[in-house]
Amino acid sequence: AETAVSVREMSKQLGRARVLSSIQHVLIVTKARDNRLIKLTRELALYLMRKPRQGGRGLVVYVDAQLQTSRRFDAAGIERDHPELFRPFPHRRSSSSATSSNGKEDNGDQNEQGQLRYWTAEMCGVTPHLFDFVVTLGGDGTVLFTSWLFQRIVPPVLPFALGSLGFLTNFDFAHHQAVVDSVVESGIRVNLRMRFTCTVYRAVKQEEGGNRKAIKRAETGELLMKGLGRSGWEAIECGWAQGAETLNGKEKQIMCFTTRPVESFEVLNDLVVDRGPSPYVSLLELFADDDHLTTVQADGLCISTPTGSTAYSLSAGGSLVHPEIPSMLITPLCPHTLSFRPMLLPDSMELRICVPFNSRSTAWASFDGRGRIELKQGDHITVTASKYPFPTVCADKQSTDWFSAISRTLNWNQRERQKSFV
Amino acid sequence: AETAVSVREMSKQLGRARVLSSIQHVLIVTKARDNRLIKLTRELALYLMRKPRQGGRGLVVYVDAQLQTSRRFDAAGIERDHPELFRPFPHRRSSSSATSSNGKEDNGDQNEQGQLRYWTAEMCGVTPHLFDFVVTLGGDGTVLFTSWLFQRIVPPVLPFALGSLGFLTNFDFAHHQAVVDSVVESGIRVNLRMRFTCTVYRAVKQEEGGNRKAIKRAETGELLMKGLGRSGWEAIECGWAQGAETLNGKEKQIMCFTTRPVESFEVLNDLVVDRGPSPYVSLLELFADDDHLTTVQADGLCISTPTGSTAYSLSAGGSLVHPEIPSMLITPLCPHTLSFRPMLLPDSMELRICVPFNSRSTAWASFDGRGRIELKQGDHITVTASKYPFPTVCADKQSTDWFSAISRTLNWNQRERQKSFV
Amino acid sequence: AETAVSVREMSKQLGRARVLSSIQHVLIVTKARDNRLIKLTRELALYLMRKPRQGGRGLVVYVDAQLQTSRRFDAAGIERDHPELFRPFPHRRSSSSATSSNGKEDNGDQNEQGQLRYWTAEMCGVTPHLFDFVVTLGGDGTVLFTSWLFQRIVPPVLPFALGSLGFLTNFDFAHHQAVVDSVVESGIRVNLRMRFTCTVYRAVKQEEGGNRKAIKRAETGELLMKGLGRSGWEAIECGWAQGAETLNGKEKQIMCFTTRPVESFEVLNDLVVDRGPSPYVSLLELFADDDHLTTVQADGLCISTPTGSTAYSLSAGGSLVHPEIPSMLITPLCPHTLSFRPMLLPDSMELRICVPFNSRSTAWASFDGRGRIELKQGDHITVTASKYPFPTVCADKQSTDWFSAISRTLNWNQRERQKSFV
Amino acid sequence: AETAVSVREMSKQLGRARVLSSIQHVLIVTKARDNRLIKLTRELALYLMRKPRQGGRGLVVYVDAQLQTSRRFDAAGIERDHPELFRPFPHRRSSSSATSSNGKEDNGDQNEQGQLRYWTAEMCGVTPHLFDFVVTLGGDGTVLFTSWLFQRIVPPVLPFALGSLGFLTNFDFAHHQAVVDSVVESGIRVNLRMRFTCTVYRAVKQEEGGNRKAIKRAETGELLMKGLGRSGWEAIECGWAQGAETLNGKEKQIMCFTTRPVESFEVLNDLVVDRGPSPYVSLLELFADDDHLTTVQADGLCISTPTGSTAYSLSAGGSLVHPEIPSMLITPLCPHTLSFRPMLLPDSMELRICVPFNSRSTAWASFDGRGRIELKQGDHITVTASKYPFPTVCADKQSTDWFSAISRTLNWNQRERQKSFV
Repeated sequence: AETAVSVREMSKQLGRARVLSSIQHVLIVTKARDNRLIKLTRELALYLMRKPRQGGRGLVVYVDAQLQTSRRFDAAGIERDHPELFRPFPHRRSSSSATSSNGKEDNGDQNEQGQLRYWTAEMCGVTPHLFDFVVTLGGDGTVLFTSWLFQRIVPPVLPFALGSLGFLTNFDFAHHQAVVDSVVESGIRVNLRMRFTCTVYRAVKQEEGGNRKAIKRAETGELLMKGLGRSGWEAIECGWAQGAETLNGKEKQIMCFTTRPVESFEVLNDLVVDRGPSPYVSLLELFADDDHLTTVQADGLCISTPTGSTAYSLSAGGSLVHPEIPSMLITPLCPHTLSFRPMLLPDSMELRICVPFNSRSTAWASFDGRGRIELKQGDHITVTASKYPFPTVCADKQSTDWFSAISRTLNWNQRERQKSFV
Repeated sequence: AETAVSVREMSKQLGRARVLSSIQHVLIVTKARDNRLIKLTRELALYLMRKPRQGGRGLVVYVDAQLQTSRRFDAAGIERDHPELFRPFPHRRSSSSATSSNGKEDNGDQNEQGQLRYWTAEMCGVTPHLFDFVVTLGGDGTVLFTSWLFQRIVPPVLPFALGSLGFLTNFDFAHHQAVVDSVVESGIRVNLRMRFTCTVYRAVKQEEGGNRKAIKRAETGELLMKGLGRSGWEAIECGWAQGAETLNGKEKQIMCFTTRPVESFEVLNDLVVDRGPSPYVSLLELFADDDHLTTVQADGLCISTPTGSTAYSLSAGGSLVHPEIPSMLITPLCPHTLSFRPMLLPDSMELRICVPFNSRSTAWASFDGRGRIELKQGDHITVTASKYPFPTVCADKQSTDWFSAISRTLNWNQRERQKSFV
Repeated sequence: AETAVSVREMSKQLGRARVLSSIQHVLIVTKARDNRLIKLTRELALYLMRKPRQGGRGLVVYVDAQLQTSRRFDAAGIERDHPELFRPFPHRRSSSSATSSNGKEDNGDQNEQGQLRYWTAEMCGVTPHLFDFVVTLGGDGTVLFTSWLFQRIVPPVLPFALGSLGFLTNFDFAHHQAVVDSVVESGIRVNLRMRFTCTVYRAVKQEEGGNRKAIKRAETGELLMKGLGRSGWEAIECGWAQGAETLNGKEKQIMCFTTRPVESFEVLNDLVVDRGPSPYVSLLELFADDDHLTTVQADGLCISTPTGSTAYSLSAGGSLVHPEIPSMLITPLCPHTLSFRPMLLPDSMELRICVPFNSRSTAWASFDGRGRIELKQGDHITVTASKYPFPTVCADKQSTDWFSAISRTLNWNQRERQKSFV
Repeated sequence: AETAVSVREMSKQLGRARVLSSIQHVLIVTKARDNRLIKLTRELALYLMRKPRQGGRGLVVYVDAQLQTSRRFDAAGIERDHPELFRPFPHRRSSSSATSSNGKEDNGDQNEQGQLRYWTAEMCGVTPHLFDFVVTLGGDGTVLFTSWLFQRIVPPVLPFALGSLGFLTNFDFAHHQAVVDSVVESGIRVNLRMRFTCTVYRAVKQEEGGNRKAIKRAETGELLMKGLGRSGWEAIECGWAQGAETLNGKEKQIMCFTTRPVESFEVLNDLVVDRGPSPYVSLLELFADDDHLTTVQADGLCISTPTGSTAYSLSAGGSLVHPEIPSMLITPLCPHTLSFRPMLLPDSMELRICVPFNSRSTAWASFDGRGRIELKQGDHITVTASKYPFPTVCADKQSTDWFSAISRTLNWNQRERQKSFV
């Protein structure tokens, strides 16, 4: 809750101010297997490294370590044609890099490198402060991949599209020189886009002799924990369990489970929990803070940020939500009851999606379309506003950017559209 | 914008604190033509007036002035059975009532009155501070009517339902004595529900000789104002106009209009702009702050608060929106383009819905289902967050109240529902 | 029912065979007030009249009588440039025209006319067999207007679009010469599109002394007709009525109404019943044959043919329905219950939409967007498959035509679309 | 096509006439693992076997072979209490059973059996004519399972629900004795519900040296078959293929595939093709007869019969379709383009759903929720109206049955519903 509010406040201040930054280290993300993109990456890297600045030399550019040996990228050719770029480049920020170089040996090496360097996924995760700036080349998927790379602090991201612009890619690569010039010379203005922190909890069987047993009421199905003061959702969640023994005719003593967090993912668009390969529908229990919202009988659930409202959530019938609205979108996938409609909750809430023990099948979760994992009976995922938002460079004001993206991508207000079908 | 933020902050603080109020003057709203409700109103009024309090006498109760002569309400019978209630009741808050009694003669009379008094719509609009509290008897419609009565400051509202509870009516009249006792003895906790201020602007023809003429570009249709530095939506909005003269072959000089505000309405649920009796579809231009969002080709638009997200907006395909989310819902009615989907914008924005001059037909606006007015070509309505929110008494926490209302009214989680249709 | 089946059979046979017709009299429908269209009409009329055929002279062309005095159409200019077209043209089919010329004086005159003649709405309604063929110039609205003109038998219709093709306008005017040549020389293949016959029934108050009184059960609200053996919907439909007298405490004797048909409309797309200017929602009772389907709480209902499934019904959430499927689409407009979903019934059924006596407001009906009439409490409309289908010329096979229209108009499979929003 | 028409005709005739059948052999389908159902099966079987008829003895009853050894079913107990039921029962239809007893040894045994016999899935598939009648005990799932058992001819099915009725289960087990009496004494009336025949085609790689190679045009991507006269969809379907060799600079010769049918399924509700466990969206190509409808970018497709329109198709946004309408419903699952709306095509068409070679992932198909199989790139499924419809016993007229099922299951017209949410 506190996190959500402070991210929002920071977002507003940042969104209004023009950030005059002294950019020195730029990271380029692209699909390292797409030959056309490799060529453009080379072109962009050269432009950035050779752009003269007041300090003298151009920028330090990190490209994907996979390009180190790429014939198309041809690093050797760059060195042959521009040997000056490969002279050692002076230290970065002495204090912070000193700290990090102690911890990471290869950071020390970097300081001996020239302007062309190579990033790895590990560097993005562990030392994100190395980079002043990220440029992406590709579609919205490349921006999502960047969010995936930076699971904690994210440098400002400047997304270039090739061909037609998308919801997240609001700069055209055709104008990349002018855009880069403007960024380097006049600084940038960023939107802080909310991300979600999704934490996976796995059910852990209590050790034998542990005192967490529970009594299951025969009629109501309610679970009462022995020697346990808690109430609320937990009673509901547990559901049926194997190994129940019959107690005094009707009530049953059942095996009890606790859960522990095992993994955590930051998502920019959405968390999707669905039935995966199972032909049977997932049974999911949905909670918001301590309130049980509903038992979900559907193909699954999409929990989306406002940024993700134009992605999968829209396919599933969700509304378009302006990225400044502090909210979480809950959109059922093919719900089996007509009254389960898309819903928005405040981003200060903690959502919990549980696979109850009485579900016929397991469920599967994916995070921004990646990292598909299985959720077994008894597992759950919590979703909260992240304290690591995702800063993207504005082309115009945030609202204008968003309205433009919608008009453009959904073909609003097109001349052809004027001829409505009625 | 500032208004929206501060209402939100106030809302949170109020929502958390228990307001210990010294309630003395209660107003009862009900359908004064429904015989069953009149009987219950009488019952409730008696309970309130006779409830002994630490000060001695019970509460002062205002009922609808239409009941003054109602045989069923039988005020004379009350006086006959309980003459003590009709002894003059001491002054209210000396300072404020002194002020108002100067201005309003009948207020002076009220101070001589007993505990049973009569309210008029005018009193609600002009001297809302007379009432510590409003009790409604009826359905959600009665709560909306209360919002209509109090177009500025609204006293806290305690809504009783008869039979089944609704989205806004979260207290069952069957338990009214216990609820009233608790309110009088322990105070209340309120939600501040956002309202919208909807302001109607009418097109005013410029006087002859005025210098607001405009040039219409032949190809683009763009309008350029003569001697006018502004840009943005205004250029778009004006559209075609009659009386255009041909200028140098292609460009046209057209008559120009300005608008002025004529009326203003506070809504708790929604503003609906539709084609009214016209068989033709309204053409509407929709703006958010200075951005032109889209040209609406649809039966109309529903602009809804989060509170209204469970009402007409839901019929039109909108999402369910938690009342704490600071947003405005824009939901098209039967849109003629499949890509115009329901949308949410921040409540800090100003929406503007314009009937352009090239619309084939006029449009009609209604405010919480009331006050249907015609919008002619050139008119527009602005919608902003109101500085007069609508405080309703919580039964539980706001979120829990809202989740309960949805589960109850949409039949979520019902046993019958468990048997989904798939 | 029988009608529906036989129309279907005829449709299939016609759809398969190539109709080799000897076309002689062509009627052109267009918007007679659109200057651009008048010019194209003139061009098309000339082409048709001057096209040499095996019989010698070209075709006889009927244009809108409003063009008789149009300066742009300039009939006098045509006569001046092509006097041969104004020589008397030989009789049509002697037998049928003889019959009609007896009844209609101006028909007699026509036989003395040249090749350029003028049609009136009355001629379309009364003597549709005068025309071998109709050509429309304009959008889908012009085709609907043609359906409106021909309320009984409809000659085959060849719809030309200007600019972009629509759902109904599958020929591009840019190729009109080649299309006309092909039609005249090789004949045509037509689709018979189903229309609906919508009959309006008005409530008629029984005369005093009549024996149609009814008893209203106090608890159930059920109506029992005195001296009446019928059951089914009628009992439900009547609802509350004014002027009820109290009978033995609880039951009431109420005034009873019968209905009689007053008007009938053929529609190609849809019948829409909505609340019109009323701010209150219409209460409608919907019946299929003798079954009561549901009490409609919605802004209204759209009853659509398969042809109309791509028009207003689509806006309201209906499915796309292939024109060969013998069905009626029932699509609610902004329904107030989430479970009232769009529905399809067999075209052999008779639908009945009633405004019950307990509706707060009246309802309004429009037929293909025209002829808006008010339905008062007690009135109803029946909808059945018409025995006068609407034949349109195929460009390809019916299915291929329809698939093309959908792809084109809804932008399916467009390159831009390949970039889906997810 | 011919099949669809004749099934429809038969359906109408059967639906109208009351079938007076001489029922002798009844099969009971239920969930053989549900203890409660086993008990009811026993009860029902006894009632059927002991019901005296004009011929003397009661009916011959087949129960699930799994019950042969069930302690709860207790066949031995039945034999102990009712030895007369276990005396050999006279031959059935001498001719047909003679034929089948030759082929099947256990059939020969059956003729020596008493009135209690056991069915196996194989018997349902191979000798469906052994059974005059099927009774199901359970929910809609049990009826679907019955359709699965009888992949060719299906005996009339009488579906009993326990507790609340479903869409397919229109008889309440509480009244089973009266229902069975009426069926045995007065005969039945059946609906013939359309089923689909879904045939799976697998891609088969051509042998080396075969002459089916193709040329892929560089620019258009069009495939031209060498020595092949065909056109239409096939060109589109093949898409990219591996192992392409470069030919004269731009065009490529690619490996070519043909397909052959490998499996066939009859479905009563629907065929669903989705992305299964894959996180990526399936790319599907959809054809109707020879027309390419669209490239599906969605989570999948639901192809549903009118009977299935109240099942999964409804979850995905499809319309409710009366079972007499001869149509196929195509409903996309979470489509990625807003213009891909649910669609209905005539049941005389052949649908084809192809996984093109350029799809990133495979797809999965399930048939009435069963038999989940993987479709690899190059595979396809065809869907046509089946010549083996599914006869169900009517409670009332077919339309009335269907309207009742909808009202009941979707909670239409319920008192609670009258209080709409607006």
